[in-house]
Amino acid sequence: MNCLEERIKKDGVVKEGNVLKVDSFLNHCMDVSLFNEMGKEYAKRFEGKHFTKILTIEASGIGIATAVAMHFGNIPVVFAKKTSSINLDGEMYTAQVESFTHKNTNQVIVSKKFLGAEDHVLIIDDFLANGCALLGLIQICNQAGAKVEGIGIAIEKGFQQGGQIIRNLGYQLESLAIVDKMDAKTGEIVFRQ
Amino acid sequence: MNCLEERIKKDGVVKEGNVLKVDSFLNHCMDVSLFNEMGKEYAKRFEGKHFTKILTIEASGIGIATAVAMHFGNIPVVFAKKTSSINLDGEMYTAQVESFTHKNTNQVIVSKKFLGAEDHVLIIDDFLANGCALLGLIQICNQAGAKVEGIGIAIEKGFQQGGQIIRNLGYQLESLAIVDKMDAKTGEIVFRQ
Repeated sequence: MNCLEERIKKDGVVKEGNVLKVDSFLNHCMDVSLFNEMGKEYAKRFEGKHFTKILTIEASGIGIATAVAMHFGNIPVVFAKKTSSINLDGEMYTAQVESFTHKNTNQVIVSKKFLGAEDHVLIIDDFLANGCALLGLIQICNQAGAKVEGIGIAIEKGFQQGGQIIRNLGYQLESLAIVDKMDAKTGEIVFRQ
Repeated sequence: MNCLEERIKKDGVVKEGNVLKVDSFLNHCMDVSLFNEMGKEYAKRFEGKHFTKILTIEASGIGIATAVAMHFGNIPVVFAKKTSSINLDGEMYTAQVESFTHKNTNQVIVSKKFLGAEDHVLIIDDFLANGCALLGLIQICNQAGAKVEGIGIAIEKGFQQGGQIIRNLGYQLESLAIVDKMDAKTGEIVFRQ
């Protein structure tokens, strides 16, 4: 079991509706030491690959991506924004992303200034469930002509379809913890071996 | 001139309406090396102070806070959220925050689980203008009974009132770059000495 799986076993809470609460260390209160360990693990799994940028999505991906960047030579981290902003002028790449957690659809945007055909991208995010967020980020990379060289996810819900869709598209998808089964009644969490 | 002031001079863009665009290194594309240097500078300025947690606000504060935490013994980073979420059950601290950039009002929330009377808090954020976001975070710390031991800001707009309000309240506020004047026509940016 790696550091993230151990932490999920210890502090993750299974709720009804296939919700895994990891807000005490991953996406509300953030354990920066753990993020560093995760960065080391991604560095191992993507050894030999060359990335020029990390792409993530606000808000929960940002902390993880920042710590991960330090294990890839401090490459710039671009985070996709979920709403338009008066500070984001000029042209943008856009994608529609449906949120499983918030049960809504967001427009996701990245300024064209920060992603281009010269980029080799490592996508980082905290969760992978139905894959909508990830497909939105891949779509943005495609619009930019940038190459998605790898995808690093903290927690993949293996019983939802996102992981399979992404792997079938041929991407190197590395999820540090793949939950194959969880039970809100017993609190049991089963990881993929 | 410190590393952040130099970078603002080099890559910051002054826009009409008192907007300083720093999205190429601070709040859309993030320069993690710069964040590390900023963390070192905060460690100097807050030397001798003991913090148990960093509190920031999504989305732009999260990357900076993550890098800064590594210079304060990897203390946990809690980020205040701008909307309610089905993943945030239980009781929460709340404050109303008006955004200068987005011209709207947000409810800002922090789960009561992650901030308490035992906490000594370093608040981190990217911008300080009218002080609304910061006052919201201070209010949340007060609700928790936590002590705000210090406030680290990247860029303070010295020509707006937030900095003075916060300093008058007696907080140690450390802004790495205080812009006293900026001109959208000439692009000139004047920092406080």
